[in-house]
Amino acid sequence: MAQSPDIYVDPRRSDLQRRYCETRRRTEALCQPLAVDDYQIQSIVETSPPKWHLAHVSWFFETFVLRPFAGGYRPFHPRFEYLFNSYYYGVGQMHPRPQRGLLSRPTVEEVYAYRAHVDQWMLELVDMLPEGDWPELERRVNLGLHHEQQHQELLLMDIKQNFYVNPLCPAYAPAAPKADSGSAPPMVWIDRPGGQFTLGQGPDGFAYDNERPAHPVHVPDHRLASRLVTNGEFLAFMDDGGYRSHEHWLSDGWAMVKRERWQAPLYWERDGGQWRQMGLSGMRALDPGEPVCHVSYYEADAYARWAGARLPSEAELEGMLRERPLQGNFVESGRLHPAVAGEDGQWYGDVWEWSASPYVPYPGFRPLSGAMGEYNGKFMCNQMVLRGGACITPASHMRPSYRNFFYPHDRWAFAGLRLAEDA
Amino acid sequence: MAQSPDIYVDPRRSDLQRRYCETRRRTEALCQPLAVDDYQIQSIVETSPPKWHLAHVSWFFETFVLRPFAGGYRPFHPRFEYLFNSYYYGVGQMHPRPQRGLLSRPTVEEVYAYRAHVDQWMLELVDMLPEGDWPELERRVNLGLHHEQQHQELLLMDIKQNFYVNPLCPAYAPAAPKADSGSAPPMVWIDRPGGQFTLGQGPDGFAYDNERPAHPVHVPDHRLASRLVTNGEFLAFMDDGGYRSHEHWLSDGWAMVKRERWQAPLYWERDGGQWRQMGLSGMRALDPGEPVCHVSYYEADAYARWAGARLPSEAELEGMLRERPLQGNFVESGRLHPAVAGEDGQWYGDVWEWSASPYVPYPGFRPLSGAMGEYNGKFMCNQMVLRGGACITPASHMRPSYRNFFYPHDRWAFAGLRLAEDA
Amino acid sequence: MAQSPDIYVDPRRSDLQRRYCETRRRTEALCQPLAVDDYQIQSIVETSPPKWHLAHVSWFFETFVLRPFAGGYRPFHPRFEYLFNSYYYGVGQMHPRPQRGLLSRPTVEEVYAYRAHVDQWMLELVDMLPEGDWPELERRVNLGLHHEQQHQELLLMDIKQNFYVNPLCPAYAPAAPKADSGSAPPMVWIDRPGGQFTLGQGPDGFAYDNERPAHPVHVPDHRLASRLVTNGEFLAFMDDGGYRSHEHWLSDGWAMVKRERWQAPLYWERDGGQWRQMGLSGMRALDPGEPVCHVSYYEADAYARWAGARLPSEAELEGMLRERPLQGNFVESGRLHPAVAGEDGQWYGDVWEWSASPYVPYPGFRPLSGAMGEYNGKFMCNQMVLRGGACITPASHMRPSYRNFFYPHDRWAFAGLRLAEDA
Amino acid sequence: MAQSPDIYVDPRRSDLQRRYCETRRRTEALCQPLAVDDYQIQSIVETSPPKWHLAHVSWFFETFVLRPFAGGYRPFHPRFEYLFNSYYYGVGQMHPRPQRGLLSRPTVEEVYAYRAHVDQWMLELVDMLPEGDWPELERRVNLGLHHEQQHQELLLMDIKQNFYVNPLCPAYAPAAPKADSGSAPPMVWIDRPGGQFTLGQGPDGFAYDNERPAHPVHVPDHRLASRLVTNGEFLAFMDDGGYRSHEHWLSDGWAMVKRERWQAPLYWERDGGQWRQMGLSGMRALDPGEPVCHVSYYEADAYARWAGARLPSEAELEGMLRERPLQGNFVESGRLHPAVAGEDGQWYGDVWEWSASPYVPYPGFRPLSGAMGEYNGKFMCNQMVLRGGACITPASHMRPSYRNFFYPHDRWAFAGLRLAEDA
Repeated sequence: MAQSPDIYVDPRRSDLQRRYCETRRRTEALCQPLAVDDYQIQSIVETSPPKWHLAHVSWFFETFVLRPFAGGYRPFHPRFEYLFNSYYYGVGQMHPRPQRGLLSRPTVEEVYAYRAHVDQWMLELVDMLPEGDWPELERRVNLGLHHEQQHQELLLMDIKQNFYVNPLCPAYAPAAPKADSGSAPPMVWIDRPGGQFTLGQGPDGFAYDNERPAHPVHVPDHRLASRLVTNGEFLAFMDDGGYRSHEHWLSDGWAMVKRERWQAPLYWERDGGQWRQMGLSGMRALDPGEPVCHVSYYEADAYARWAGARLPSEAELEGMLRERPLQGNFVESGRLHPAVAGEDGQWYGDVWEWSASPYVPYPGFRPLSGAMGEYNGKFMCNQMVLRGGACITPASHMRPSYRNFFYPHDRWAFAGLRLAEDA
Repeated sequence: MAQSPDIYVDPRRSDLQRRYCETRRRTEALCQPLAVDDYQIQSIVETSPPKWHLAHVSWFFETFVLRPFAGGYRPFHPRFEYLFNSYYYGVGQMHPRPQRGLLSRPTVEEVYAYRAHVDQWMLELVDMLPEGDWPELERRVNLGLHHEQQHQELLLMDIKQNFYVNPLCPAYAPAAPKADSGSAPPMVWIDRPGGQFTLGQGPDGFAYDNERPAHPVHVPDHRLASRLVTNGEFLAFMDDGGYRSHEHWLSDGWAMVKRERWQAPLYWERDGGQWRQMGLSGMRALDPGEPVCHVSYYEADAYARWAGARLPSEAELEGMLRERPLQGNFVESGRLHPAVAGEDGQWYGDVWEWSASPYVPYPGFRPLSGAMGEYNGKFMCNQMVLRGGACITPASHMRPSYRNFFYPHDRWAFAGLRLAEDA
Repeated sequence: MAQSPDIYVDPRRSDLQRRYCETRRRTEALCQPLAVDDYQIQSIVETSPPKWHLAHVSWFFETFVLRPFAGGYRPFHPRFEYLFNSYYYGVGQMHPRPQRGLLSRPTVEEVYAYRAHVDQWMLELVDMLPEGDWPELERRVNLGLHHEQQHQELLLMDIKQNFYVNPLCPAYAPAAPKADSGSAPPMVWIDRPGGQFTLGQGPDGFAYDNERPAHPVHVPDHRLASRLVTNGEFLAFMDDGGYRSHEHWLSDGWAMVKRERWQAPLYWERDGGQWRQMGLSGMRALDPGEPVCHVSYYEADAYARWAGARLPSEAELEGMLRERPLQGNFVESGRLHPAVAGEDGQWYGDVWEWSASPYVPYPGFRPLSGAMGEYNGKFMCNQMVLRGGACITPASHMRPSYRNFFYPHDRWAFAGLRLAEDA
Repeated sequence: MAQSPDIYVDPRRSDLQRRYCETRRRTEALCQPLAVDDYQIQSIVETSPPKWHLAHVSWFFETFVLRPFAGGYRPFHPRFEYLFNSYYYGVGQMHPRPQRGLLSRPTVEEVYAYRAHVDQWMLELVDMLPEGDWPELERRVNLGLHHEQQHQELLLMDIKQNFYVNPLCPAYAPAAPKADSGSAPPMVWIDRPGGQFTLGQGPDGFAYDNERPAHPVHVPDHRLASRLVTNGEFLAFMDDGGYRSHEHWLSDGWAMVKRERWQAPLYWERDGGQWRQMGLSGMRALDPGEPVCHVSYYEADAYARWAGARLPSEAELEGMLRERPLQGNFVESGRLHPAVAGEDGQWYGDVWEWSASPYVPYPGFRPLSGAMGEYNGKFMCNQMVLRGGACITPASHMRPSYRNFFYPHDRWAFAGLRLAEDA
């Protein structure tokens, strides 16, 4: 009996629909512990209210997929193009970033309706799109899904910051059972031979534009630490006057220490003689064996100098990441907090590792065309590259060539460090 | 047959309970149109989130009534003393004002539970308090109720500001039916003889400490305008270059015009050739017959100079208010917007009238004792007195001697002006 | 033999020339101790470089006398109208105040040449002006001379501030021989009956517009302290936690204490256990008997509350000033520093006395016509009145009705306080 | 007859003395056109008053040479160690940078006396130092002389900025005779083969620590423009909406354009339809053939994108610089302004060329020991490298490996650009 054509399912299309649904549902699942009240808060200018994230990632699909490809698409609301544009001037003007926290409307309920509206059109479009448009559609939907995964991580970063400014220190999640037993293994140096090395992702496979093109770089002989720097090690730096001694610091970093009165990593608080740390499960005693987290580049760099070492370059890190299995303490572990090192070296997950490399374009870099070209390229100044992902990063979002980037003073990212030294 | 003592009702106590309940329910009724999302927003540093208002007025009763008088009172939450203290250093430290909008917790639901907790204890306390404590209790509860009425007005001021910064311009209430027919009657001058006059409230009746003591002042012969200045009149000032001509302005006012780029009263927006005005019912065409509202003292003063007149002193205004019936366009009208003048002179209600008088203590002023002394006295510098109440003021909150006060640059109050001149 | 008509001297004109020359020479004499380097400095935005003062007072004569009255007058430099205008928008645009310290050109030498140019024209104009223009000319020259006297005081205020920010603490003048022996006499209360009183200057005699018209005010029975508050008394306030206790302070004052971290009057520094004070003769040990100086209104008010008293109103002060001889420690004493009280009550000189009165227009106030109307009127908001002159004020500049004014946070004026209380 | 030992002259020592004297005299010669008034000005926080430069370079010799090597050295003034320390925390605390312009004392005369004092001791020390200390002394004096040459350039940069903020637009120097005839030659691309290249200075010869160690880098095939970008070419960018179109700009650059309202390079002003440019000889018509100067990195980068090209890396520039004769329009030409290109390619002199390379340490970088280690290393974050020197740079200060660096928003350096592109 002949199969009816209308129940023929194109596996590429159904696969994309499946991944689309998975990612979108995952975003919503992350918001499940929030009260409506929690969705409105923008506690520092760098963060966005959870509600805004939920809407913006939908705006991305609406703007770059539905408007150009879905004939007859009717936007959910005429002002959302303006309200939920983040920084794409090529699309048009946008609501000022520092005022994202002042939008009580649309309500959370309306934002979820917006998501549902976009989802319905997206799933239909993936089904119905003419074959000729498919490659570009697939490219864009994939980009949109990786974009949404980035915002899943931002959601958790921002919720943590939002809860931290509240004297009630609410908990986002129950504390994970304490799996860590004992302390971190001793740090040992791993020798890494230098020479010419190919940095960046080749033409195949999904990658952001900023990871390409692959190109030769020269790397010196060097050594990498066998694990991340721990809270306990960082405490030794602090106890040795780390935040009071100019000589470890970059000039701009020292100015920041003075201006912001930094005395410890972000989310650390002194309670009598003990340090406590705010996590997504609330305030608890600092665990000296866990990797230090929420340090700026300035603090990471100062620590490394104090320790007689340096930060690794992104090429040194990528070289190692390419040799290691892509596994670690990612968001799927449910821990939402960096874990004490085991034997795997913590190359992936736990905390983003600050590299010593400024975020600049690779030679021959070409941004995406059109407004999507604003995705990465225009930020290639004044920021530093981080590598390897963190405990709030989706595992499927990670690659050896992945380049995250923050300003050297940023601290609300889940960022820590690994030492390196010249051979 | 003898009446059972346990159903004897002390009419003073039941009256206070009735007024307490009425005021508390009125506050909550004002929030009824809000979505949970709307309760979190602090759009400018001068405003507070609706949720904060709801909690703070309960904090007032908790702090100044329940803690000192209700034996065995157990506070609803140990941190609320800190979170919802506004400015009473005598009570203790307080959450920083600019961060009130960052508190997603307690949730709206929890805040209502806090209110219910306080209400239950308050009603019981009024019933049970020994007679000896009654006079002080009654004084404090009355103060607390007037305090809550002030916050009812602030709630509406702040909601308007919150909705204004949202590009969606939400409406708090449906537009009142357009009762105004025709335009404002012509302004005429009312001659007022000068001489010695008693300013302020005598010892009887409820009044804030800042309205006392009554004391002699000398008032010159003068004239008062028969109604408020209208939008249409203010437009003539604007069309004559009012915001571009230094010569009408106080020096500090002109600096503010330049710095803030003021070109019109707050909540006015130009839409092509037409002016529109944001009200609690949303954006609508500007009505030239309505009183001008949301002008700073600087703008009111500049308008008066441009018009060849001046602002009245608070003594001149109080003299007239004492002669007029205490009625006008108050919050009970449901209009929530100033109305075109009728024949009553608009002495009460519609908009607060800026006086030319700095807010300073009356000779012999004595603040309340204890932390309640911070209620008024410590603000007696750098602010100007306003008189007469507005369309969002509860009628029962008003008195001829009532002194409202704002900084000369403040614009989010429902403030307008009436002209005066020397005879 | 008949006297030649061309050597006839009009005594009004020669008298004005004499006073003009005296005042102008006095200004230059005040600058004699300065190095060329000292003329350029603007250490805080409120101050001006000495060079700018020297030029601005000449600009005043050029603008309001020479341009309108001296036919054929050729300005010294076409851009000086812009550079040395202080705040007269009626004259035209002006160089931004915060950038006065960035003008190395014109050089000091050129500014003195500018002064000479203006002087030559002024003296000739006074000689030659037709009789019909004389009354207005005389009025304006008198205003210009009082204006220059005000800048003589500002020069000394600003030099003190300029030298204070220099770690070398240079001295402007040698220390006056220490005439003070012993300590201040005990403060006693002087009873002052209340009633109706005429405040302000009548139509005769020179006065600024802001001192008129004379008008009735009602003053309560009160008491005035027999002398100024001393450094020693202020130290007792400080030792009692004055700068750490909110309850003495106005709300805006307390915010300023916190923001600026005030712990003592301006120019006080702690050197080990001892307080030192910067004066125009450099740094020296604080004399507890001298009047406290360089306090803001907020500090004066807080001290008075702490002492269980209050600040006097300007009417209370003027009432007393009218009864006292116009003499005291003025600039002519050469001391340039307040002196320990003797028996005269310190009603004039030593330090300006903060009154509790906001600087507002008297009823019926009329500013001068034209751009000169900006002299005083537009500042009548947000400032407080001070009375009586200081040790850097020219004696001939003082009158009982004189109203000085500063913002309540200003501290670089030579301002102190006298206590008052209700009878 | 034997030569007397005491007239023996060590040629290394006399040579160092000669170079010392030449450099010191050159600094003073640069200040010769200044009035005393001009020495005090700090027009923006990045600049320093000329007087401060004169003292600071002497402080450098006093601190790093005389104090450690000249036995019995008596500092000129005990507070100068504090006043004229720039940023060497290893030496001690320092006067706050933004307040350098507030120091009227020491006077200019005293600063010159300070220089003479240091010079006398320095010359004597070079004569008398025991041979064993000589190598370190020579190293430090050489460093001090290069340091002073850097400040010679800063002096001219800062004087230009100081004079620019003055509405009188004073001229530092008479205009050089107009040597330029005709316009710049057409720009052509020069092909440059890629491959492995050694970047940085080898162990021999004087170089700053930041130029070492020499190390291998991989450079792609590329092309370099045959001359600098001209004013006329930059005008075409502006006329094409360069400052109004987000798409050419880095995100941080666009934010700066908006915040600072940039519409043209620094020192350009529109006079009716014509552009004028402030130079060290005052304001004059813009010459379209001259290289564009006083652009930030952001503007250079935006221009390059607009032109369909990019900025060269520092390795690409150094590769070319090594092949070219070290000559160009340096300060010795007396022009003090970039010149229209001739046939030499403008590789050296005229304007510093922005590279696309962040200022980071070379692999294996080692800072100088002690407080001198703060000279360069601590600034290796957030800044960009510039190459080749400018028309205000001493020729003897330049090297192919020389790395200058400024923040990407800085504009008061004499900085322009040359285009590059991938082959």
